[in-house]
Amino acid sequence: MSKEKISILKIGGNIIENEEKLTAFLSLFSKIKGPKILVHGGGKSATQFSQKLGVETKMMNGRRITDKDSLDVITMVYAGLINKNIVANLQRLNCDAIGMSGADAGSILSVKRPVKDIDFGWVGDVISINAKNINRLLNSEITPVFCAITHDGKGQLLNTNADTIAAELAIGLSEIYESHLYYCFELNGVLLDISDENSVIERITTDDYEQLLDQNLISNGMLPKLKNCFDAINKGVSKVYIGNENLFNQTDKKYTTIQL
Amino acid sequence: MSKEKISILKIGGNIIENEEKLTAFLSLFSKIKGPKILVHGGGKSATQFSQKLGVETKMMNGRRITDKDSLDVITMVYAGLINKNIVANLQRLNCDAIGMSGADAGSILSVKRPVKDIDFGWVGDVISINAKNINRLLNSEITPVFCAITHDGKGQLLNTNADTIAAELAIGLSEIYESHLYYCFELNGVLLDISDENSVIERITTDDYEQLLDQNLISNGMLPKLKNCFDAINKGVSKVYIGNENLFNQTDKKYTTIQL
Repeated sequence: MSKEKISILKIGGNIIENEEKLTAFLSLFSKIKGPKILVHGGGKSATQFSQKLGVETKMMNGRRITDKDSLDVITMVYAGLINKNIVANLQRLNCDAIGMSGADAGSILSVKRPVKDIDFGWVGDVISINAKNINRLLNSEITPVFCAITHDGKGQLLNTNADTIAAELAIGLSEIYESHLYYCFELNGVLLDISDENSVIERITTDDYEQLLDQNLISNGMLPKLKNCFDAINKGVSKVYIGNENLFNQTDKKYTTIQL
Repeated sequence: MSKEKISILKIGGNIIENEEKLTAFLSLFSKIKGPKILVHGGGKSATQFSQKLGVETKMMNGRRITDKDSLDVITMVYAGLINKNIVANLQRLNCDAIGMSGADAGSILSVKRPVKDIDFGWVGDVISINAKNINRLLNSEITPVFCAITHDGKGQLLNTNADTIAAELAIGLSEIYESHLYYCFELNGVLLDISDENSVIERITTDDYEQLLDQNLISNGMLPKLKNCFDAINKGVSKVYIGNENLFNQTDKKYTTIQL
C-alpha cells in the first residue's frame, strides 16, 4: 500500500516579516489537503527585540551566538509572538493549528552544540524526532506549527536552525508518510546565476549536485540549504522543493526540485 | 460507571516568579497520577519586560488594560518565555507536557470584552472550551500547559484571566471527567482573618459562601477567585481547592475546599 503524502513547509524571514505576504501564504497553506506541518524561524524580529531590550546580537559567520539573554528573547519572539499569531491566523482560516517548540510533546530532541573553534552558546543540533507524538496530532487532523526552538530533555531550551528542523521532521516522518519538504524563501529557487532571478534550476539530482559543487556554482548562502535537502532525500524524504512563498501553489514550475 | 478524575491546577505569580518554588512545584505536579492540566499567568514578568521595552503598563482596579503593545509583550512572556521553560522542565521530569494558548488546537474561544465604563483593550471573556481536542491530547497521555491567552477565532489573540481559564477548563471537561480544580496561590487558603495566615477556612459550601458574603467577611482580592470557584462547582466541577503550592500534596489539610 502506498503511503499517504505529508507536506512539510518551512518559511523564511521574508514571509514572516511581511504581513501581507504572511497572510497570503497562510491562506494558501490552510488549503493544502492532507497532513501538513509548518516550520518558521524569525531571526529579524528577534534582532529587533534584542535591540529594544538592550541585548547584544552576536553573529559569527552569519549565525547567531546564543547566550542566555538571547535565548530568552528568541523564546519570546519565536515561540510567543510569531508562533501564536500564526496559529491564531490559521484558526481563523479553519486550519486546526497547534503551535509548538521541540520541547512540546517532547517532539524534537537536540544536544547543545559542542564547543570547537566557536562557542555558539545555547544552540541545538537535532538528535531525534518523536514521530509517534507528532503523528498522534496529525491523526487528530491537527496541524503542528513549529518554531525554531528545541530542547535537550534535561530542561534546557536550545536555539535550532529552522531549515534543519524541517528536514529532520520530514526524515523522521518518512517511515509513516511520503514526505514532501518545501523550503519557501526569498528567491524563485536555486539560481544558476545569482544575479538573474529567472535562472532557476528546475531539477537537481545527486549527480547534478556534485557537478555544481565541483564547478563552484552554488552560492555560499545556498550551500547549507542544499546540504539539508540532500540529507533529507538520502534519508527517506521523497522530494524537496525550493522556491518562493507561492511555490507549492504554482503551475508554471518556477522552483527547484531536489530528487535522488 | 464513575468518571475518571482529572486534576486541573492553576499557579500564580508567586510560584512562577520564584525559581526554587517553581522547580519544587513542577516536581510535585509531574508526579500527579492520571490526566492533568496546568494553567499559569505571569503578570509580574510581563510588567518587567514592558518596562524594559518602554511599553507602559496601565492598570485599572488591579486589572491590566491591554493595548496592542501590551498584548505583544504578554504573548512573548506568557506563551513564549514562561510557557516553554515550564514545558522543558516538565519534559525533564518525564511529564509529556505540551504548551498551549487558547488559540492552539482551537482549545479556548473568547470574545473581546465589550467596552462599557472601561475599555480593557485586547482582553477576552471565555465563550467555550474545545473539550474534544483537549481530550485527544489527554488520551495520548499528553499534559496541556495553558498560558493566560485565548483567541476570538478571527485571528485575534486575547489576554485572559488565568483563574477563569482554569475554571472554564474544569467545567468544559466535567462531562468527560470528574473535575478537580486546584488554585495554588500565595496564601494557605481562604482566610477568615486576612491578618492571620493560619485562619484557613477548611470548607466553604454554597450556604457558607452566602453567609460570608452577607457578613462582608471575604476580602476584595478573594472575591473574584471565589466567584470562579462557585461558578465551577455550580457547572459540574466536583471539587475546588484553594491553597499554597503544596496544597495537592498535603496531608495536614491546610487548604480550603469548595463544595456544593
